[in-house]
Amino acid sequence: MLLISFEGIDGSGKSTQVELLREYLVDAGYQPLIVREPGGTDLSERVRTLLLDEDVDIEPMAELLLFSAARAQLSREKIRPALEAGRIVICDRFYDSSTAYQGAGRDVAVSEVDNGWLKELHRRATGGLVPDRTYLVEVDAQTALDRRSSQRTGPDRMEGAPESFYTRVASAYDILARNEPERFLRLDGEDSISGIQGKIRADVDRLLDSARTGA
Amino acid sequence: MLLISFEGIDGSGKSTQVELLREYLVDAGYQPLIVREPGGTDLSERVRTLLLDEDVDIEPMAELLLFSAARAQLSREKIRPALEAGRIVICDRFYDSSTAYQGAGRDVAVSEVDNGWLKELHRRATGGLVPDRTYLVEVDAQTALDRRSSQRTGPDRMEGAPESFYTRVASAYDILARNEPERFLRLDGEDSISGIQGKIRADVDRLLDSARTGA
Repeated sequence: MLLISFEGIDGSGKSTQVELLREYLVDAGYQPLIVREPGGTDLSERVRTLLLDEDVDIEPMAELLLFSAARAQLSREKIRPALEAGRIVICDRFYDSSTAYQGAGRDVAVSEVDNGWLKELHRRATGGLVPDRTYLVEVDAQTALDRRSSQRTGPDRMEGAPESFYTRVASAYDILARNEPERFLRLDGEDSISGIQGKIRADVDRLLDSARTGA
Repeated sequence: MLLISFEGIDGSGKSTQVELLREYLVDAGYQPLIVREPGGTDLSERVRTLLLDEDVDIEPMAELLLFSAARAQLSREKIRPALEAGRIVICDRFYDSSTAYQGAGRDVAVSEVDNGWLKELHRRATGGLVPDRTYLVEVDAQTALDRRSSQRTGPDRMEGAPESFYTRVASAYDILARNEPERFLRLDGEDSISGIQGKIRADVDRLLDSARTGA
């Protein structure tokens, strides 16, 4: 029925926003499916374990392909069936994360974010799924780092990268959002949690109205 | 120094040929690196375990991307360093297997074997490695099935497919070999083991001569 993704650098606060939106939708009588990447299926969880294991050497290209494999399974096993059953699906990260993190962040021989081969990889991995809306929660790299260091005991493979890495990721997200202004809604992650959530809920209400009218 | 791959459907006898070639090269004073796909690195072996686990649902596209991820790691961690150190590398399966098995065999929305996106996936996964020679050991699907059923106790995920699957794989190999006649050397897998090996050794001797002359 409606496919929504949340994007942003680690520490942007997007997962909190996902949870608050879930509560809102459940209170309104919906049964949203929430998925996080990489994960959500047996295969994807096993790939997640592998990706987070610091004892295993993983080259950037291998990392991109592992995330994409997990996404291929999740898209076919969970997301598409839920959409076809009329449910709302909320993805805590989707393919834009791979463009920003594995593409721009780790620079997998991907010189431009707007890369044709990478887009085609995403199209094939998801089987053609494109979010109806992508909420991009934006904070600067230093704010995100400060938040993470105050919340966590230690970084894992995904979160242990330097500030310069996050600066590249944030700038990739910026390009993606400029390239698809109709899909992306940018949110200032320095606003209050309830302030950000208010904007998301108002937007979701509009999307649900359009979905009903269009159906 | 020299990158050689062996291809063929399961039961073609190619792994026997790989071992005989390894012995020949070692006797001649070389230190060939033998790698099998998927495998050969920590990551690749863990991906192999996942791929062979019949309890995990794996969609064809996810399978293609997992094989490619394992190949990306193997290419960078093992194959390229060995080649740069002047060694001969022999791959028991390389990217042609993905074209034939995951592409044509399972039909991952890849309508033609000679698919541009898939070629680019291989190019990126391997970091641009192309075998100097690929030995394609050809047997018909029924012969291969008979050999496998006489040798093994039970099929795993990769080997439990029906004859029609192997017929598609064999025909994909046929197209690949026709498209790149200078890289592929086709061998009749119904010949004697020593007869096939004789042809391979004569060809490898020529390749080593050229490599020395060219250097």
